[in-house]
Amino acid sequence: MRLPNTDTLLVNQDGPVLHITLNRPDSRNAMSLAMVNELMALFEAVKDNRDIRAIVLRGAGGHFCAGGDIKDMAGARQQAAAGDSDAYVALNRRFGEMITAANQQPQVVITVLEGAVLGGGFGLACISDVAIASRDATFGLPETGLGVIPAQIAPFVVQRIGLTQARRLALTGLRFKGEEAQRLGIVHEVVDSSELDNALAQTLATVRRCAPNANRVTKQLVLKVGHEPMDSLLDQAARDFADAVNGEEGQEGTMAFVQKRPASWNQ
Amino acid sequence: MRLPNTDTLLVNQDGPVLHITLNRPDSRNAMSLAMVNELMALFEAVKDNRDIRAIVLRGAGGHFCAGGDIKDMAGARQQAAAGDSDAYVALNRRFGEMITAANQQPQVVITVLEGAVLGGGFGLACISDVAIASRDATFGLPETGLGVIPAQIAPFVVQRIGLTQARRLALTGLRFKGEEAQRLGIVHEVVDSSELDNALAQTLATVRRCAPNANRVTKQLVLKVGHEPMDSLLDQAARDFADAVNGEEGQEGTMAFVQKRPASWNQ
Amino acid sequence: MRLPNTDTLLVNQDGPVLHITLNRPDSRNAMSLAMVNELMALFEAVKDNRDIRAIVLRGAGGHFCAGGDIKDMAGARQQAAAGDSDAYVALNRRFGEMITAANQQPQVVITVLEGAVLGGGFGLACISDVAIASRDATFGLPETGLGVIPAQIAPFVVQRIGLTQARRLALTGLRFKGEEAQRLGIVHEVVDSSELDNALAQTLATVRRCAPNANRVTKQLVLKVGHEPMDSLLDQAARDFADAVNGEEGQEGTMAFVQKRPASWNQ
Repeated sequence: MRLPNTDTLLVNQDGPVLHITLNRPDSRNAMSLAMVNELMALFEAVKDNRDIRAIVLRGAGGHFCAGGDIKDMAGARQQAAAGDSDAYVALNRRFGEMITAANQQPQVVITVLEGAVLGGGFGLACISDVAIASRDATFGLPETGLGVIPAQIAPFVVQRIGLTQARRLALTGLRFKGEEAQRLGIVHEVVDSSELDNALAQTLATVRRCAPNANRVTKQLVLKVGHEPMDSLLDQAARDFADAVNGEEGQEGTMAFVQKRPASWNQ
Repeated sequence: MRLPNTDTLLVNQDGPVLHITLNRPDSRNAMSLAMVNELMALFEAVKDNRDIRAIVLRGAGGHFCAGGDIKDMAGARQQAAAGDSDAYVALNRRFGEMITAANQQPQVVITVLEGAVLGGGFGLACISDVAIASRDATFGLPETGLGVIPAQIAPFVVQRIGLTQARRLALTGLRFKGEEAQRLGIVHEVVDSSELDNALAQTLATVRRCAPNANRVTKQLVLKVGHEPMDSLLDQAARDFADAVNGEEGQEGTMAFVQKRPASWNQ
Repeated sequence: MRLPNTDTLLVNQDGPVLHITLNRPDSRNAMSLAMVNELMALFEAVKDNRDIRAIVLRGAGGHFCAGGDIKDMAGARQQAAAGDSDAYVALNRRFGEMITAANQQPQVVITVLEGAVLGGGFGLACISDVAIASRDATFGLPETGLGVIPAQIAPFVVQRIGLTQARRLALTGLRFKGEEAQRLGIVHEVVDSSELDNALAQTLATVRRCAPNANRVTKQLVLKVGHEPMDSLLDQAARDFADAVNGEEGQEGTMAFVQKRPASWNQ
């Protein structure tokens, strides 16, 4: 498979898993515009690739992502000073487009969270299907402490953990660790940092047991709940169910079950 | 009260409580079409019965419900082979109609969960007003592991525990026990299996303390939140409040409170 | 600043913090119509006041608020008997108007919860940005046990903790303590009652670190999630972000960060 070239990301395909590593360790993987664009290009490139069933996002150098990039902000400041008042708007909005796309990516998206998980890094964690955190990872929304707002991030925090918890985090800028992140529902699992790779391997094993197309259809379905009337959603789901049963996966799944062997996709 | 005859369910009325037991222990109470139809007939039959204030759902033989029924699936396969391509659609959709109805049942619906709580059984647990689980009950969505999708179930899991937790469970097929089910918000209480009957009795005692009609109106109200504009919901609620205060229950409730005695409905 | 006179509330401004104490200790601060009206007048009076950044709500005499006021109910009963059938409706609805306003108050709203947090007191707790509870505070919705309904309260409980937990609390009238309230997501922090003042001081310190206008804009943003299409919400947020960066707070925040000193608003 031909993937876009990337400067800010390390990309590595391992069978059905695409590993993407945010790779700007000198700035704790601060989310630059270049990184945002490269992530979007990657997501787009693999969207319809049925061989890729999971995408793993993590950071190089012991941090996930410390937030927005200061140099980009300085650049936008210069553009704004030169009369382009939309420079900040565009820079900010682009990040939101990226996590919107990541949220709807057909593959299972897994984040491995350690070190700084702040601002935009926090937002990115909030769209993953499975979030695995190191016990000593640091989470928080530092924006209002800097006089700005978590504009493209806070809405995804509300979607992730609900208004009740999100309003407190956004209005106090609290920092907290992995176990609190799990208690709040931001992450699903917390382990010692030495156990992150094991935990990831176990999650990937569970994903491999699930039929690839069935997982795609199921992800589409759960993302629609609350955005469409329940009855028409369930009508469509029944048709998707019939297609799944009649399809290759449904037949192989039934055979494998009867023959008490792993299904063909589980390897 | 005359209730529909049932082959797959044991039904027993104990004062204001209707006990329904899924009774196909040989298949761990797999949810057959016959069972779905009998449940719907029962729900419909007691819907307007003011003497029944709570419905208890549990399973015979140490399991709640292990999911869909294999024989029904085989039957649909034959129909499909004979040209009725909608056979799977209808079978699947009917289950969703049943839990949709169960979710809106005017009585307080209590599930007692032990053994297998899988697939459709998981879905049914997700619509109960009070879910009491045995510590060693097993929960999970096995569908995508079998090459199909949790079509009529996943949407109710999202409504139950939110997108963040539902997406992970649906896309990994994870199995987990009672305490994790409580942590995720699927069930409200977890006890040792020997304590299930006690826990149920305590919950039923709390329900008996609540005025029957007030509970009906309150259940309608909470089910509407998020589906109607908040202001018109609160307007209607204020009118319902006035009706309740002026009604028999409101007057008896006030008297009982002043006289420091249990209200007439609390027995 | 000139504030409305109040009979049922103690009001005290301490720099950027407005302390409001429900002050009807003889009735455990039961929420009378007078109190509702005085709260609304206060919220309205300070709404546009940029010097006030936080509002603290608590109760005098060791209780937060035990619910509705019995004398008001008796008054409405007389009015109803005299032919004004809307007396109960108006009394009830007014309370809902108050918590609707409180929910959207631009300042950070903090509740300090001890003793009785019942009925209307429970509802008021459910709209706070930060809720700090004493370990031995008592929470519950006693309405249906009295033959009436938690009309203006239950919808805010659903918004606070979701349908799954709200339906059980509303239909069983369960009473529970601070730690369970935290587990259910009603409150954010639980401490011994002797530690309430410390916990409040720490929360206020975190609020002071956040830029006042950035917090206002952020609160507006998070309250809109789910009520507007996500894309237009994020578009607006990007414009708000640009305004914040270009504004006084954004410039001061950047300077303070570079100079490694607290920002001007953090004192």
